[in-house]
Amino acid sequence: MTAPNGPLADLRRRLAEISDLERMAMLLAWDQEVMMPAAGAEWRAQQRATLERLAHERFADDHVGALLEASVAETPLDEDLLRVTRRDYDKARRVPGDLVEELAHAGATGHEAWTRARESSDFALFEPHLRRNIELRRRYIACFPEAERPYDALLDDYEPGMRTAQAEDVLERLRDGLVALVEAAGPAADDALVTGGPFPTEAQRRVVETVLRQVGVDDARWRLDVAVHPFAATVSPGDVRLTTRYAEDDLDSLFCTLHEFGHGLYEANIDTALARSPLGTGVSSAVHESQSRLWENMVGRSPGFWRWCFPQLQSAFPERFGGRTWQDVHRAVNVVRPTLIRVSADEVTYGLHVVLRFELELALFEGDLDVADLPAAWAERTRAYLGLEVPDDAHGVLQDVHWAEGLFGYFPTYALGTIISGQLWARIGAEIPDLDERFAQGEFGPLADWLAEHVHRYGRRLTPNEIVERATGGPLDPGPYLEYVRAKLAAASAGLIA
Amino acid sequence: MTAPNGPLADLRRRLAEISDLERMAMLLAWDQEVMMPAAGAEWRAQQRATLERLAHERFADDHVGALLEASVAETPLDEDLLRVTRRDYDKARRVPGDLVEELAHAGATGHEAWTRARESSDFALFEPHLRRNIELRRRYIACFPEAERPYDALLDDYEPGMRTAQAEDVLERLRDGLVALVEAAGPAADDALVTGGPFPTEAQRRVVETVLRQVGVDDARWRLDVAVHPFAATVSPGDVRLTTRYAEDDLDSLFCTLHEFGHGLYEANIDTALARSPLGTGVSSAVHESQSRLWENMVGRSPGFWRWCFPQLQSAFPERFGGRTWQDVHRAVNVVRPTLIRVSADEVTYGLHVVLRFELELALFEGDLDVADLPAAWAERTRAYLGLEVPDDAHGVLQDVHWAEGLFGYFPTYALGTIISGQLWARIGAEIPDLDERFAQGEFGPLADWLAEHVHRYGRRLTPNEIVERATGGPLDPGPYLEYVRAKLAAASAGLIA
Repeated sequence: MTAPNGPLADLRRRLAEISDLERMAMLLAWDQEVMMPAAGAEWRAQQRATLERLAHERFADDHVGALLEASVAETPLDEDLLRVTRRDYDKARRVPGDLVEELAHAGATGHEAWTRARESSDFALFEPHLRRNIELRRRYIACFPEAERPYDALLDDYEPGMRTAQAEDVLERLRDGLVALVEAAGPAADDALVTGGPFPTEAQRRVVETVLRQVGVDDARWRLDVAVHPFAATVSPGDVRLTTRYAEDDLDSLFCTLHEFGHGLYEANIDTALARSPLGTGVSSAVHESQSRLWENMVGRSPGFWRWCFPQLQSAFPERFGGRTWQDVHRAVNVVRPTLIRVSADEVTYGLHVVLRFELELALFEGDLDVADLPAAWAERTRAYLGLEVPDDAHGVLQDVHWAEGLFGYFPTYALGTIISGQLWARIGAEIPDLDERFAQGEFGPLADWLAEHVHRYGRRLTPNEIVERATGGPLDPGPYLEYVRAKLAAASAGLIA
Repeated sequence: MTAPNGPLADLRRRLAEISDLERMAMLLAWDQEVMMPAAGAEWRAQQRATLERLAHERFADDHVGALLEASVAETPLDEDLLRVTRRDYDKARRVPGDLVEELAHAGATGHEAWTRARESSDFALFEPHLRRNIELRRRYIACFPEAERPYDALLDDYEPGMRTAQAEDVLERLRDGLVALVEAAGPAADDALVTGGPFPTEAQRRVVETVLRQVGVDDARWRLDVAVHPFAATVSPGDVRLTTRYAEDDLDSLFCTLHEFGHGLYEANIDTALARSPLGTGVSSAVHESQSRLWENMVGRSPGFWRWCFPQLQSAFPERFGGRTWQDVHRAVNVVRPTLIRVSADEVTYGLHVVLRFELELALFEGDLDVADLPAAWAERTRAYLGLEVPDDAHGVLQDVHWAEGLFGYFPTYALGTIISGQLWARIGAEIPDLDERFAQGEFGPLADWLAEHVHRYGRRLTPNEIVERATGGPLDPGPYLEYVRAKLAAASAGLIA
């Protein structure tokens, strides 16, 4: 056993404290979106800043460095802990506190400017703030001079160990595959069945709660609340909080909830022996996103799911679905049709929205794209990948908040997650051949168990690449996802999808 | 202006950080009672312990001492800040960290043992834990050897600067006055009108929300939620959270909510210039309790309040109150009748429950009362003050959680608060002669403004004694409260109360 007063035990105590602070930050964020009265905003911002600064100071100080040097691993778990902590520590020590504060401040200012710019659909109002965010990120990149390429330093914050070249390669293949598949697909089917409201919120809520119970959510450990921008927050291993939103027009609440459930289930299933340590959370943004997209799309748009779920929908909305079949709904929720806005895109074209953003980020940081030319570049790629004209900035370059907050390197993880979900889905299908039939019986446990065993439980003990390779049998590869899309579109055009 | 990098500015920054941590602790506690899934409990306990330890460490360290020594006040506000901070600092430095942890641990263990003991109504199960709590508190007392009397050190944590002798004096006068008044009162009127349910929760909620809006609560700054043991939590000056509970049997939710509103309004009205500093909170437990009891009883049981509120009650419960008058309700909510349980006691006999506990605490720490003899002493005083026999420990010595958690010195503040509320009420009545008529018109603003002006805004800039003397014109004195009770009982027995 670890000596209770040795450096490793001291280190573990310090890391537990920092983990507690990070979880509290999660709770403060959740509370702000879901519970807090509006007048609490300015004070909450100060509370969150205090918490973040303290967590950073308590981690990035000399004492932790000395403990890391003095600690000797006695178990494989210790080895993993020390390796991951050293990595985090080295990164935390690189970035001066002043720069961290400047980034946070510029992000907040940028967010405000972006809100105003989007309201008047005028990129010019946002441009100087975006320029400032990019300039600060360049200073951030400069803290990591050993990176082969500037973008590596950004990507590494979300995908530890991933290089820009690898992301470029797989996202280019994803893009080319999707563009070809979407172009070759026939005209989209009619989805008015699930987009033409009204679907009263209370009835949606009943369906959502029934679905969550069926996939494994219980009140002892989970909450579901409403938020304008839905998210999942894991406050502790015994306290997982999902949020969703209800619009009377459509049934997106169901897919949104399944998406957040995927995130929450990942965190909920991490080995509790890793709790209160840097190992006790999801390994990367892309692996996290693979879980959310798998539940949202591969489960939530599968025939089996709808064979089980359709009676729930009929009971909630008897007038709308009384004379229809599960096949009707299944067909409607699988419609593929290019649109301008990422967050309301269908499952398939979503990836093209993301690749577009990744390519523009890369051009901003590594190429010759100037901020002033961003709207034109956005329009050009929207035409090329989605075949659509961008009517104004609000429906183009101003639609997402990420860049306004100074988040660069995050977008690609959405598509990388989709790619991983395709690989996982192929593997799961091979190992559980009757999976769709199980869904039809309302049995989602076998899938949840598989994911817990092969992905979730490790937390950060394995690298993202190790997770993918062990769980799927190979390296990151867009092939299985493209095959999944190809089969789905082919079935739809042959009338075989439902 | 304060030099931005001088010791005073550094001190202010550190104090703001600690204040933020304390407010977060408030949020974590609120969330645990109101929102948290049950399985989060053990992790939440660790998160709260981390937060408390960190707040203590960041305050009680040498650096703060050095900043305090080097800081020079430039304004009266600085002087108040430095005086209060030095006091807090000296106290925090006196108690070894080990003892703080032992106290917390024994409190948690004691709470568990108390829960089991109360379930089986068996004091013997709780006795060793109580003995342990008292032993640890004696060690705590020993950290303050300059105290004249042992109990002074306990009382001072809740009533800064108050001495045991003063509390003994005023509480003895309160006790003697109340015992005589209750004995002399005629038989209690019938209160079945407001205690014989059912009062459906939804209808109670509507009344409670209407009342809160009328006394000044708005959604931009306040929340109201349900909790098993109601409390108020001020997460920031812009974020005040009340909790209440609904029982279908009675209308106590209304008084409970007004009580918590009194606490919340105090914190909400503190000068925001004091926010994020040790000055930015209520000055003492008794002054806080004076506010809650003033709104619960002096407002909530006044004729004017019921002239305004009665139509709300009629509209919520038309069958029950259709043929009744506001006088009927006013009479029923003012019934005085000795009972065994403190938390459900009427306004008047409540004070006797509290004095009983104070006297027993004092006998445990300064007299010759042994823990084993506590149930007998409890029964004896219950007979003497309330004229009732204690049937078992659950209805006697095991009814309150405070001692189980190691809280000693807190009980008297309930009665001291009542005394202060009486002094304030007399003064307010003299300054706003038509107050009751204003209530009848639904106007509670004049009262709220008076309290903000004379009590709330100061935070901790004045001492509790200064607050009382400036606001009421004299020192702590049970006379006005006893006169208030005497007048109420006399009016009731003369049929003049409604």
